[in-house]
Amino acid sequence: MKFTYKSPFNPKNFKDFNPKKFKIYTFNSGFKKRKDDLLVIEFNSPASVFSVYSKTSTPSAPILWDKEHNKGLCKVLIVNSGNANAFTGKEGVKAIDEYVDFASKIFNCKKSNILVSSTGVIGEQINPKKITNKLKLLPQPTSKTLLSAAKSIMTTDTYPKIASETINYKSSKISIYGIAKGSGMIAPNMGTMLSYIFIEAPLKRNDLKYMLSQHITSTFNSISVDGDTSTSDTVMLFGLKSNNDKIRINKVLLSKISQKVYSIMLNLAKQIVSDGEGISKLIEVNVNNALNKNQAAKVSFSIAESLLVKTAIAGEDANWGRIVMAIGKADTKIDQNKIKIKFGNLLVASNGKMNSNLNISKINKYMKNKIIKINVSLGIGESSRIVWSSDLTYTYLKINSDYRS
Amino acid sequence: MKFTYKSPFNPKNFKDFNPKKFKIYTFNSGFKKRKDDLLVIEFNSPASVFSVYSKTSTPSAPILWDKEHNKGLCKVLIVNSGNANAFTGKEGVKAIDEYVDFASKIFNCKKSNILVSSTGVIGEQINPKKITNKLKLLPQPTSKTLLSAAKSIMTTDTYPKIASETINYKSSKISIYGIAKGSGMIAPNMGTMLSYIFIEAPLKRNDLKYMLSQHITSTFNSISVDGDTSTSDTVMLFGLKSNNDKIRINKVLLSKISQKVYSIMLNLAKQIVSDGEGISKLIEVNVNNALNKNQAAKVSFSIAESLLVKTAIAGEDANWGRIVMAIGKADTKIDQNKIKIKFGNLLVASNGKMNSNLNISKINKYMKNKIIKINVSLGIGESSRIVWSSDLTYTYLKINSDYRS
Repeated sequence: MKFTYKSPFNPKNFKDFNPKKFKIYTFNSGFKKRKDDLLVIEFNSPASVFSVYSKTSTPSAPILWDKEHNKGLCKVLIVNSGNANAFTGKEGVKAIDEYVDFASKIFNCKKSNILVSSTGVIGEQINPKKITNKLKLLPQPTSKTLLSAAKSIMTTDTYPKIASETINYKSSKISIYGIAKGSGMIAPNMGTMLSYIFIEAPLKRNDLKYMLSQHITSTFNSISVDGDTSTSDTVMLFGLKSNNDKIRINKVLLSKISQKVYSIMLNLAKQIVSDGEGISKLIEVNVNNALNKNQAAKVSFSIAESLLVKTAIAGEDANWGRIVMAIGKADTKIDQNKIKIKFGNLLVASNGKMNSNLNISKINKYMKNKIIKINVSLGIGESSRIVWSSDLTYTYLKINSDYRS
Repeated sequence: MKFTYKSPFNPKNFKDFNPKKFKIYTFNSGFKKRKDDLLVIEFNSPASVFSVYSKTSTPSAPILWDKEHNKGLCKVLIVNSGNANAFTGKEGVKAIDEYVDFASKIFNCKKSNILVSSTGVIGEQINPKKITNKLKLLPQPTSKTLLSAAKSIMTTDTYPKIASETINYKSSKISIYGIAKGSGMIAPNMGTMLSYIFIEAPLKRNDLKYMLSQHITSTFNSISVDGDTSTSDTVMLFGLKSNNDKIRINKVLLSKISQKVYSIMLNLAKQIVSDGEGISKLIEVNVNNALNKNQAAKVSFSIAESLLVKTAIAGEDANWGRIVMAIGKADTKIDQNKIKIKFGNLLVASNGKMNSNLNISKINKYMKNKIIKINVSLGIGESSRIVWSSDLTYTYLKINSDYRS
């Protein structure tokens, strides 16, 4: 891209972390011109791992490879940005075989204990030599931190996504670290981007699976930038063992960890949508009193993904008629006379029509906020759903009409 | 809107027609500043009629009114633009009652023989006086034509939509006339806009119903501008009787008429999407060899409605990776190795990867066309679907970030 653009949600300062139970390496391997585009994470001991992947029927080669080979343990994670290795046929899988084989020798581990991800342009063949040329240099001492890891996996992201939580349990301190990337091709269908979360506790694969499936719906599967589902979506949750582990996993600790993992997943998901391509405003859609969960999901995404709602909000226009439209098209079992619509706390419509006491200048002022909350009550049940999306701006078009040139 | 914009598909010349079996009146009644915004059509004899309406669960007051009152005959049709009379509660329905009651006296017919439609901004109360003030002047001699009728129902349309066909059958000539409006909030779910088609033949309501249900899927339900379904979508098909009808409807004639009605519906549907808000290129997506009709529909709309596909085409970028993505997210029963993707006749991908013989300069030249054909074969069955959409441009955002101001 030839123009400079940053999300208004770009954090000014980033916390950084130096995890002890794994080593971080990053390189420029030639997929991008100058910036680091290759991340290698080497766990001190093989970590337990559980992953969810895009439900697309055109998955990338790394997803196909991971699903076929990995059995729940991971010694090395290799992620490149700049080339998605998606829709690359057998050659794409062969390329992975080549650099994984190389890595297994260097790190002295089974091929099945290596996980791979790729993100970037779809459909271009990946040259494995770019990766092996850097793997050649490993292992070596490294001063790379979690922030450099988060930076190395960015594509159209305007800031790195990083989150951490700690748990003090008896005499132990457990850290949980998360990184993610994603800005476009973001729509909820498991994963929706790349994210890696590392828990410094000897968790079983089933514990990881349980936590991920518990939290995925209300976090990564509750964001949408463009309604488009990537071929490369991946979330990996790692449980880190060490030789002298004092930590015993029990129900109480598992529940504490699970809560913190949820916080990190939600934090990263919101960081992704807040960096949604071309974003000027973050949209939070809160649908309450729906008949059931399915209806709450359909209605909230219908609003959050409506082009007409997203453009109205970009234009700071409280065009609630378009919200009515998005509710109406989402589901047949809705009674329009029971719908309540608020922007923030300001009631704009109820009883099947506009709120006649609406204070126009208050609502116009509200629309100037950076975060716009659309609160909808359907008035027919008890289910609810919150989802987040970004508005639709000229910058979005600028980015996406010209991504490859 | 403060800027001048016209679809590149704007026809330079319009045919016009002067139907004999109904009278056309148009007025400026104050919903719009200067242009005509009220259409009244008076049939010489009550016409048989069958309508389909938006499947939204937030239908406009006119749709509620028509569904409740009309029994299949129509003497007068009243359409206003500039106010959709949608999400206006009981007051919206009361307003219709007022002007329909007035019209029934003036035209000396039952209230149930009057049909109404409205299109424009959602959620503002409609003032029935604006309509009765003009009805007061009727009936009167009129020189208004089909083109003036088509113009009077426009909103963000940049050109009027009009179509006609004739059938010579034995000694009779049967004319069929159609008009439509629509540019934004266009997505397929019955109707998708306003359209009125008049057949100069004494057809039964069941004949009209049969034709409409036969053709709606491959015409009006095969276009999408923004994936957003209007609250006001309406298609009405009229069969026009006269006192001295020589025409006898039989199977042969019915089939001839049905073919022509199909031509008009397809013609009007393509005119609507060709006037899609901000359009610079018309996208035709042709999905073949799908497993079944449902899969063909899901895949074709997933491509046609993908923001990333629409922005790539606006940018004249043959970014077929995004087409792969849109196919992948649409349905689970797809084998990526069997997909073939062409732009026009140019094969860009097959066997799970890019066509290695792809002539880049040829494809770049193709992307400069005004009509872009995306031809996809899924290679797993025999079903197909063609759908049309418009690309996503800066002008689209300009129109929709600023529609009400």
